[in-house]
Amino acid sequence: MTGKNKSNVTTERITDKSARRDKQQEDSTAVRERKQTPADFSSISSKDLLPASGGEEMTKGFLQELVNILLDYICKSSQRSSKVLDFHHPHQLKEGLEGFSLDLPEQPETLEQILVDCRDTLKYGVNTGHPRFFNQLSSGLDVIGVAGEWLTSTANTNMFTYEVSPVFILMEEVLLRKMQSIVGWSDDEGDGIFCPGGTISNLYSILLARFYFFPEVKTRGMSHLPQLVLFSSEHSHYSVKKSAAALGMGSDNVIMVKCDERGKMIPAELESSIVAAEERGLVPFYVNATAGTTVYGAFDPLNDIADICHRHTLWMHVDAAWGGGLLMSHRHRMKLQGIERAWSVTWNPHKMMGSPLQCSAILVKKRGLLQECNELGAEYLFQTDKHYDVSYDTGDKSIQCGRHVDVFKLWLMWKAKGSEGFGSQVNKCLENAEYLYDRLQRRTDFELVFKNKPEHSNICFWYIPPSLRSLPPGADRDTRLHQVAPRIKSRMMEKGSVLIGYQPLATKVNFFRCVFSNPATQQEDIDFLLEEISRLGSDL
Amino acid sequence: MTGKNKSNVTTERITDKSARRDKQQEDSTAVRERKQTPADFSSISSKDLLPASGGEEMTKGFLQELVNILLDYICKSSQRSSKVLDFHHPHQLKEGLEGFSLDLPEQPETLEQILVDCRDTLKYGVNTGHPRFFNQLSSGLDVIGVAGEWLTSTANTNMFTYEVSPVFILMEEVLLRKMQSIVGWSDDEGDGIFCPGGTISNLYSILLARFYFFPEVKTRGMSHLPQLVLFSSEHSHYSVKKSAAALGMGSDNVIMVKCDERGKMIPAELESSIVAAEERGLVPFYVNATAGTTVYGAFDPLNDIADICHRHTLWMHVDAAWGGGLLMSHRHRMKLQGIERAWSVTWNPHKMMGSPLQCSAILVKKRGLLQECNELGAEYLFQTDKHYDVSYDTGDKSIQCGRHVDVFKLWLMWKAKGSEGFGSQVNKCLENAEYLYDRLQRRTDFELVFKNKPEHSNICFWYIPPSLRSLPPGADRDTRLHQVAPRIKSRMMEKGSVLIGYQPLATKVNFFRCVFSNPATQQEDIDFLLEEISRLGSDL
Repeated sequence: MTGKNKSNVTTERITDKSARRDKQQEDSTAVRERKQTPADFSSISSKDLLPASGGEEMTKGFLQELVNILLDYICKSSQRSSKVLDFHHPHQLKEGLEGFSLDLPEQPETLEQILVDCRDTLKYGVNTGHPRFFNQLSSGLDVIGVAGEWLTSTANTNMFTYEVSPVFILMEEVLLRKMQSIVGWSDDEGDGIFCPGGTISNLYSILLARFYFFPEVKTRGMSHLPQLVLFSSEHSHYSVKKSAAALGMGSDNVIMVKCDERGKMIPAELESSIVAAEERGLVPFYVNATAGTTVYGAFDPLNDIADICHRHTLWMHVDAAWGGGLLMSHRHRMKLQGIERAWSVTWNPHKMMGSPLQCSAILVKKRGLLQECNELGAEYLFQTDKHYDVSYDTGDKSIQCGRHVDVFKLWLMWKAKGSEGFGSQVNKCLENAEYLYDRLQRRTDFELVFKNKPEHSNICFWYIPPSLRSLPPGADRDTRLHQVAPRIKSRMMEKGSVLIGYQPLATKVNFFRCVFSNPATQQEDIDFLLEEISRLGSDL
Repeated sequence: MTGKNKSNVTTERITDKSARRDKQQEDSTAVRERKQTPADFSSISSKDLLPASGGEEMTKGFLQELVNILLDYICKSSQRSSKVLDFHHPHQLKEGLEGFSLDLPEQPETLEQILVDCRDTLKYGVNTGHPRFFNQLSSGLDVIGVAGEWLTSTANTNMFTYEVSPVFILMEEVLLRKMQSIVGWSDDEGDGIFCPGGTISNLYSILLARFYFFPEVKTRGMSHLPQLVLFSSEHSHYSVKKSAAALGMGSDNVIMVKCDERGKMIPAELESSIVAAEERGLVPFYVNATAGTTVYGAFDPLNDIADICHRHTLWMHVDAAWGGGLLMSHRHRMKLQGIERAWSVTWNPHKMMGSPLQCSAILVKKRGLLQECNELGAEYLFQTDKHYDVSYDTGDKSIQCGRHVDVFKLWLMWKAKGSEGFGSQVNKCLENAEYLYDRLQRRTDFELVFKNKPEHSNICFWYIPPSLRSLPPGADRDTRLHQVAPRIKSRMMEKGSVLIGYQPLATKVNFFRCVFSNPATQQEDIDFLLEEISRLGSDL
């Protein structure tokens, strides 16, 4: 066993308990030999760690061993020779694969077993930092971001008051101000808060818009309000409908505005939808424009939409969860022209800026509105007779009471990269997208879903297997093409070599969507992706 | 400088840039001498780390140095000689205290500066793991929990689909099943999800209750609904009102039910409030009972409330965010008798179970309701033609799209402690509360806010300075007593020796609330707390 690659330690199937113990013993031996940590983790448990008296050395030894596992994982993540994932079906993992048991015990396990559990958790997970992970808008593993998260969890505090989070509260203020100025708002406007994800940020925007026009809703509810309607494009994110449902407005009252072939909202369609709704006695109050749609990566024409919102006195929100990162690039920020006219903006640094999950901001132009809308002034938290400036107790701005510290990693990344560094990262991702677009244009075994040059890093395409290449367009070809992407994806997951998403959209049958947000990705990975798809799909 | 304690490195005030550079140089020297890491961090930046080619060693060196800082912090946290906090006012920190600048640069900083920034962030923060931090319901620094968070952020994935979170999705299922069975639900009932905090968990319960009785609200909104009203006790958490406001029901439609002197909801008051609301033409649909109120730590009589909910066909929610942990203790779980009759339960392991923030679960008795209430079936994420069992794509149960992995740390802690270990932790915290209660009863310079023995770990009390001891009860004494706690708290924060919260409540003027959730706290810390309060307040 000695000398065996540790990452393969868990690959043998071990079924009975004694064999499992042996395996753990061997793992532990391998661990000790590698780093010569002093502790024998097989005889100690969490009770021996701090706050146990004299637990310092044991605590350092245990956490150091965990860190060794994590550092190995981080280095392996960047190696193209490693798998993106080692897929197992739910029932396989639940059956206790190779001794990895998910069950929760009555009695403590040893720290040795805890370290084995940690290795197994990483082994059966998905390597979202791998240069060939193209499956989600969030990808990559930013080392500074990871450092930021490790510190955040060690500090283990809460964003509700300055009293327990002085530094993080100020970092949130600094970050929000910076993001507001990048959006283009003046120094005397701008407010905001970091939220648990883009959907909640979008939810805040609707909540604020409703409160702005109908402040009595906070205390009296919606019963006394007219029938409100919202507008969002048919390519926009489902969070607008989900929020409208949760907030009591009803998903049917989100009017889906038509898009052009490229996925951009058609301003004339927006205006006619507004007029039609008003004629039906409904009350429009809110428009969501998208800067970077989820599937096509399209940018709605913000200035045209702002004009319409202005004419009809509607709250204009820009969902730039995905596209906001482009504001960091001198080369690409003009794609969001008009965003400065928005009343609120969602911007997720955990997407295009590569911050670890989760990191999403809702920016609000009108200062004070967030507080007014959400404050309840709970006296056990937000005492007004504290000895410091309690305007820094920002927790009553949020719906949440306790709020996770999502800002530190972003602040640290900003320090480490500078605004410039974020700009370069964004540029690189968009260059990758252009490269893929160029490759696809030259190949006859792939077809682009839309012909235009990409604006964001999304590239949508079909792989056409040999058996379909001679078929004429029509229902038969569509039916067969619809099955190609899921089947390739299934093989891809089993093989674990690369990961990319697919979906249908309106009349388009299942197609692949490739997105680039990981600075680790190189052109060779893009070449590999296309070759791998064609290898996996050539017999379909 | 060599040999100087590193934690004091930043205590000199350094104003000009060159002096600051010198200081960084010295910090770096100290760092290298201590651990002999190979890298000179003053000449490298984040660009030299992975994914840069050949960046493995630099990445390991940098993260190892950060870990050294964190390990020192963790060990220092447990030392009673260290301060709980090193307080500075917002303007002081914003002015760039001792060279610590919050500003976000255009150009990258060196990794050496990044490490200094990390040390400063910890230095000016609040040590929530300190045995003398009594300020919040969440406290302590669980080593296994921290390990879990470090791994979680390294895995950096998202809870929406099995595809990208196979292991974490299954861990969530296992944890929820376990918690449901501990609540007392049978194997064929029970559903749930982990949420960003207890307020959001409570919000889910109201959302679900509304959908259960009025499913059309999801698509059509509240306009077609009768005037709904909710019930919660006057001692319950403000999240019920906040959620009702956000969900469009209006905070005024949360009817606050009277409590007894101990802070428990009075069942007869609940029933008469329900009847009175019905007589006014309002439609009751939901009752929130609290198991462990925020200030008094009171447990509402759950069985009596369940009887009333049954009679009136109302959704019974139990907010056990704070009290849920007591279910882990054989000695204390009878305080939540009747919780098995709840239709939904909020339970925050980040409070009484000591898990790092955030970790909150909403448990729902009726299986499938969460999914029905929230699902929208976005095809880019929740494809139905995947090759695995897509019932494990649980992301459409939640309002959020992306969802942070909050489960791993709790799963790992459960492995490391066993159910038994959590039980012992809870018992210890409650023993601490009893000890404080006994001490307070014996002292004449303190007064208990309520006389009864504590049920949870909350102890509420006044400190009576010598100048007030001979004053008769009445408005004058109240006015003066009201100012005592804030003044002591202010001195306490400046000194940084201990931290405890205070608040007024109804007719009671400002009093201290001590809560125990940190297993590191010993009786000597409780003795210290009382002595310190009396030292800081004797001249008031």
